[in-house]
Amino acid sequence: MEISARNTLKGKVVKVVPGSINTEVTIEVAPGIELVSVITKSSAERLALAEGKEAYAVLKSTDVLVAVD
Amino acid sequence: MEISARNTLKGKVVKVVPGSINTEVTIEVAPGIELVSVITKSSAERLALAEGKEAYAVLKSTDVLVAVD
Amino acid sequence: MEISARNTLKGKVVKVVPGSINTEVTIEVAPGIELVSVITKSSAERLALAEGKEAYAVLKSTDVLVAVD
Amino acid sequence: MEISARNTLKGKVVKVVPGSINTEVTIEVAPGIELVSVITKSSAERLALAEGKEAYAVLKSTDVLVAVD
Amino acid sequence: MEISARNTLKGKVVKVVPGSINTEVTIEVAPGIELVSVITKSSAERLALAEGKEAYAVLKSTDVLVAVD
Amino acid sequence: MEISARNTLKGKVVKVVPGSINTEVTIEVAPGIELVSVITKSSAERLALAEGKEAYAVLKSTDVLVAVD
Repeated sequence: MEISARNTLKGKVVKVVPGSINTEVTIEVAPGIELVSVITKSSAERLALAEGKEAYAVLKSTDVLVAVD
Repeated sequence: MEISARNTLKGKVVKVVPGSINTEVTIEVAPGIELVSVITKSSAERLALAEGKEAYAVLKSTDVLVAVD
Repeated sequence: MEISARNTLKGKVVKVVPGSINTEVTIEVAPGIELVSVITKSSAERLALAEGKEAYAVLKSTDVLVAVD
Repeated sequence: MEISARNTLKGKVVKVVPGSINTEVTIEVAPGIELVSVITKSSAERLALAEGKEAYAVLKSTDVLVAVD
Repeated sequence: MEISARNTLKGKVVKVVPGSINTEVTIEVAPGIELVSVITKSSAERLALAEGKEAYAVLKSTDVLVAVD
Repeated sequence: MEISARNTLKGKVVKVVPGSINTEVTIEVAPGIELVSVITKSSAERLALAEGKEAYAVLKSTDVLVAVD
């Protein structure tokens, strides 16, 4: 399946923290660059996300804000 | 100003494409890793975004999806 | 690629309206049920979206609001 | 109240799972087509969402991604 | 129609700027407090949004970020 | 840090409700006008959000819906 989201960053899952409805997943997309995602717990289980697994962080471009110093 | 968004990636603006209401901004956050953002044209002008300028891509964790092969 | 988004609705593209930065895509997911999506023009071109093509509408559960009469 | 969101799908609540802050609500919008929504627990209570109740799934078009096989 | 979004701020439309696909709408929700919204052009036309008209800004709580100085 | 989000409303934190992964934060941006935000628990802790603290509600314009009566 190919998706419209402009941003697909390949990485490795480095942390998975399950909550009651949501689960927090941290993906390292480059050395020292981590992205934190909050998805539903059932999605995290369906994708079998676990430390060390390869995964992609997927971001729609309208959800990316820009900041400057 | 410090923001609640979990993900703040420092990088450099490599492309700015203005439209009628929105502008598309591409930020390189690591060698070969680019993030595309669509923000309003007036925000892009207010931040004076231009090629070569340092900038951050800011992402709320609930907006980050996860995919696996 | 399998994605964390809880909602993936298969359908058929029934309309594509390109703008300057964004393109509006309408997908019929069931008889009489259409979903309108706004994605970047370049994503619409990359996926070669056109009338009659099979496609999925993909929705993160936190982006789905609920209303009652 | 009429809302700007382009997508309003009428259906029936088929599952409600309350968590600590958020509640997961599943709405069947056509036979076999379900949409999962995560809203705050207090909103789910305010709307008195419960199995069997008629409800709408409401989606802003910029939040709808498109995928193809 | 009552909606799950936690935040519904009543105000008055003070500016409408149509683009090719999207329209930018500014709503004054309190003296000196304006909210800018980008919705599809067709939604803006369907709601007949125009300067001086009463309108609500509607915000899902997961889309509200928090910042501190 | 200056951010692209068009809407930045200064206010005061009036309630903080921590959950397992997320925390709900209420900010009063004008007398009688409150905005509810759901952010990750760790972000709420990092920003040291607590009742009485000054804070900003930050909203991307594409996340603001419009409604009329």
